[in-house]
Amino acid sequence: MTVNIGALKDVANRLRIASIEMTSVAKSGHPTSSTSAAEIVATLFFNEMKYEVASPKAPYSDRFVLSKGHACPILYAAWEEAGLLSHEQILSLRKIDSDIEGHPTPRLNFIDVATGSLGQGLSIACGMAWVGKYKDKASYRVYALLGDGETAEGSVWEAAAFASTYKLDNLVTIVDVNRLGQSQETQLGHDVETYAARFKAFGHNAIVVNGSNVEELLHAYATARNTKNKPTAIIAKTFKGAGIEGVENLDNWHGKPVPMEKIEAIKAKLTSTQKGTVPICPPIKDTPEFDLNLGNIKIATPAYKLGDKVATRAAYGTALAKLGDVSPHIVGLDGDTKNSTFSDKLLAKYPERFIECFIAEQNLVGVGIGVGCRGRAIPFCSTFAAFFTRAADQLRMGAISSANLKCAGSHAGISIGEDGPSQMALEDLALFRSVANSVVLYPTDAVSTERAAELAANIHGIVFIRTGRPALPVIYNNDEPFAIGKAKVFRKSDKDSVVLIGAGVTLYECIKAADELASSGIHACIIDIFSVKPIDQQTLITEAKRCGGKVITVEDHYQSGGLGEAVSSALADTENVRVRSIFVKDIPRSGSPDGLLELFGISASHIVKAVKNFN
Amino acid sequence: MTVNIGALKDVANRLRIASIEMTSVAKSGHPTSSTSAAEIVATLFFNEMKYEVASPKAPYSDRFVLSKGHACPILYAAWEEAGLLSHEQILSLRKIDSDIEGHPTPRLNFIDVATGSLGQGLSIACGMAWVGKYKDKASYRVYALLGDGETAEGSVWEAAAFASTYKLDNLVTIVDVNRLGQSQETQLGHDVETYAARFKAFGHNAIVVNGSNVEELLHAYATARNTKNKPTAIIAKTFKGAGIEGVENLDNWHGKPVPMEKIEAIKAKLTSTQKGTVPICPPIKDTPEFDLNLGNIKIATPAYKLGDKVATRAAYGTALAKLGDVSPHIVGLDGDTKNSTFSDKLLAKYPERFIECFIAEQNLVGVGIGVGCRGRAIPFCSTFAAFFTRAADQLRMGAISSANLKCAGSHAGISIGEDGPSQMALEDLALFRSVANSVVLYPTDAVSTERAAELAANIHGIVFIRTGRPALPVIYNNDEPFAIGKAKVFRKSDKDSVVLIGAGVTLYECIKAADELASSGIHACIIDIFSVKPIDQQTLITEAKRCGGKVITVEDHYQSGGLGEAVSSALADTENVRVRSIFVKDIPRSGSPDGLLELFGISASHIVKAVKNFN
Repeated sequence: MTVNIGALKDVANRLRIASIEMTSVAKSGHPTSSTSAAEIVATLFFNEMKYEVASPKAPYSDRFVLSKGHACPILYAAWEEAGLLSHEQILSLRKIDSDIEGHPTPRLNFIDVATGSLGQGLSIACGMAWVGKYKDKASYRVYALLGDGETAEGSVWEAAAFASTYKLDNLVTIVDVNRLGQSQETQLGHDVETYAARFKAFGHNAIVVNGSNVEELLHAYATARNTKNKPTAIIAKTFKGAGIEGVENLDNWHGKPVPMEKIEAIKAKLTSTQKGTVPICPPIKDTPEFDLNLGNIKIATPAYKLGDKVATRAAYGTALAKLGDVSPHIVGLDGDTKNSTFSDKLLAKYPERFIECFIAEQNLVGVGIGVGCRGRAIPFCSTFAAFFTRAADQLRMGAISSANLKCAGSHAGISIGEDGPSQMALEDLALFRSVANSVVLYPTDAVSTERAAELAANIHGIVFIRTGRPALPVIYNNDEPFAIGKAKVFRKSDKDSVVLIGAGVTLYECIKAADELASSGIHACIIDIFSVKPIDQQTLITEAKRCGGKVITVEDHYQSGGLGEAVSSALADTENVRVRSIFVKDIPRSGSPDGLLELFGISASHIVKAVKNFN
Repeated sequence: MTVNIGALKDVANRLRIASIEMTSVAKSGHPTSSTSAAEIVATLFFNEMKYEVASPKAPYSDRFVLSKGHACPILYAAWEEAGLLSHEQILSLRKIDSDIEGHPTPRLNFIDVATGSLGQGLSIACGMAWVGKYKDKASYRVYALLGDGETAEGSVWEAAAFASTYKLDNLVTIVDVNRLGQSQETQLGHDVETYAARFKAFGHNAIVVNGSNVEELLHAYATARNTKNKPTAIIAKTFKGAGIEGVENLDNWHGKPVPMEKIEAIKAKLTSTQKGTVPICPPIKDTPEFDLNLGNIKIATPAYKLGDKVATRAAYGTALAKLGDVSPHIVGLDGDTKNSTFSDKLLAKYPERFIECFIAEQNLVGVGIGVGCRGRAIPFCSTFAAFFTRAADQLRMGAISSANLKCAGSHAGISIGEDGPSQMALEDLALFRSVANSVVLYPTDAVSTERAAELAANIHGIVFIRTGRPALPVIYNNDEPFAIGKAKVFRKSDKDSVVLIGAGVTLYECIKAADELASSGIHACIIDIFSVKPIDQQTLITEAKRCGGKVITVEDHYQSGGLGEAVSSALADTENVRVRSIFVKDIPRSGSPDGLLELFGISASHIVKAVKNFN
């Protein structure tokens, strides 16, 4: 196919015009960050990429991630040029009743993931490319367009290292080096050689081009396609506001509409080609088709004896491997902690479905989100729960992306003991509860942990499973059913005068406390919360009322955002119920697990005291 | 001074022996990650670094950050060799009553910051080095020891870029390339040339050495000292478990004690030098002495008129500049959002006390923590509140470090409007509340915002200030006093039958709702929470009881960990009080601020409805 260079230049200029129009009508947005990428997007969408306009998220289509999400006007313009969006639609930019949002979200059928928090797109693209190369083994390619400013984000370099480690030759990163950030010049300005040196040092085939030159861009894409076992990074030197007279390459035009009359000069450059006439390359349909079978993935029944001492992290590893047995779409991701989280049990059986992300949790979660895109796999990311805080922003954005992602965090709380506070997750419930539409499961024993993993696999969405380090007794029969949103009333009697609520290590402390209290004639109902979010409000209300309105929560977590607040919030509107919460009150330290439970106030003795003082 | 190479080799071997002893007695810990760095630490502490053993945190002493915190046995051993710790003390490693913890914490007087979550030390070292070079203008130097595995963390590259941008020639990074991670070989193994290429591309003078060779290390430090306007990175090729027979360079020895008998072979290598006999270089005492004057920093009285429309983010910028006027120790840090957070008002007046960290929030917070170390400055980091989530792990570790850090997050909530959900902070209260010992302030108007900034400057600790985008009326007189832990009862009457609690944009919605309700004879007490943490429990209880036990919270934030949960938790144990919470119920979208408040359920009309339905 002969390439019509003039037609592609026209496309780029039409995208410029549309970007200016959209943001002018919206009275806000980013025309200058859009127009710097006009030739990049025009050449990608109308020569390089293979896709079907009618089904932009088809499994076999090339993927495009606009990591510099604020430049979305150029993306919307491209899909107008391609015929998917009408001009009227793109002019609804940023209106409350329009899905043409200020930053991309998957409300639109051509967007896989939300972007707008910078530096996250490349990790996601890596996840897609890993699936393409190693799981789907298909021809589709993945393109990520980054801004230059966002390469200051370390997550970009986590992803760059990942891409080279996994030899992702189906991945092309394009950096739009338009020199100007939001508030001043970027760290490297137009020093494209340093960008290239960085990507080269991170294992990429780095190509510097004039990003306004259609021929150079096409040549670079071709080089990328012909480069084997290495990802390619195209460093495109551009100008912010490129093509807009009196705006191009000037400061103080970030995130501001430009005057509508600026489009006249651009229109004057157009030749006689017409919108929508440049052919789009059809995809190669060699991607396997399947359904993830969500809702029907059943693991083999757990095989424990009551009283067996099993750490929930170990049970998680067992469950992950069993999920691997029954679904070919389970993919495990690790941050060099697999021998602690026990996700290495999946690796041992299914090495081809295990991704080592090394010590880079932002990328771990980002790759996981990418792996989960378009229903190609069910990603389970595992690391210490404390270290998921490193990826809090990726999780926040993952929620906006409606990502399908499972996160299993081990080493919860002070009960890990000697390693000390840096390794203790005491904010993880707060973090994962605050992720929009998330599910947070906190299984206590091995049986419930296996069920938690199974439940997580079967729903679409972000699910967190909190596991612990110490080996503690199995308390449920192997056939005990568990459900999202359902607590277990672990012990109850007609004489109960207080409700004790715990999970994990604190449930065992509740049991010890209740046993001791029973000997002095005080009877406690014990609830194993299991599902911290959604929380089983109905059971909480029922049991609280039944037991005289006295509720005590106990958690191996700080107060803020934890179990106590979740319960207090769920019971806040119920009359004649009071909640007292026991939690880790201060920054902990190294020590034995039991010693720490005692010292930081969450052991059975503190529960007994709290019950006796609860008048 | 002639260097006694043999003596330094002996020191390294004594550190090895001590590391093995400590972890054997503790029955856990990281001897192998310690011994790989034995020569690095021996040469640093007993030849290169200038400090006083008697006052390890003196302002004029060189700084050392053990970013690979799990290798702390080698650090404790060094301080024993230096004479600060006794052998008995170091053998108390990981015991509950010992400050010789499993990972370093500033409970020990020679540790500036807690480490153990990997990849964070270099940012902190950058902050210290920035202060040394640009604020203190002193001779002290900063050394950061990193593991190879942790260079997978993007935060390392954020810091590396920062160090070169600011020409931190007083900063030396040493990477202990011992090849083995926790669960397998690292991404780069012993490919020291690639490490060097990466640091070189990030603007460093990169030197590859045999990290077990004392002479090579000393030479590299000297080269670093003689390198101007560039940071140095020493890539030290080592072996995990170096010097331990049958352990060195083998897998599966991460985080495990080694048999005590292994020390015999090391002892056999010692010459006749004695512990504690190698001289330590005295510091150059050219660092200015001062007191931060916490508690006595008073800004000029705010100068607004009631009803003036001022965005709280703008008032924050004004306050920051005013703080700069009255304290020479205020330092502003930005993540390329300074024209949105208005921290550029400080830059305009005091450019020498402003640090542009570009789009790299982990490093922004890490540098801030470093800037605040040893009482050399009061760092104010500003960016969009949503983007502080990127630094959640740095904040978590900052709490363990007892960091003095102020974070001002703008663009809170859906009231930012058209930019859409990626830019809206809806989890920031949850995040900052979960930071141990933090203070969370949420001022509503310009007057209270200025006071929030002043309060933040005056206490040691992590303080978050949440600011908003829209310009809203000033509601307090300029002389209105504000305090941490104190709410404002903004409106009350004898007829109040409900308490409305808000902050920021929702307080204005509460006022509108109360005005409307008053016209139908329902009177509401309005509380401006101001201090979300610590929360003013006493005022909440008093007003809740006074108003018939009906409380409604309204927040521009998700439910989890937010204002409603904070209030519910504070009132959970109070009889006959019920709390209903209004919050952003779903993932928002682009739109006008007012339209979004209405659509996502936090506008006055929803408050009115909630009050009328509250029976």
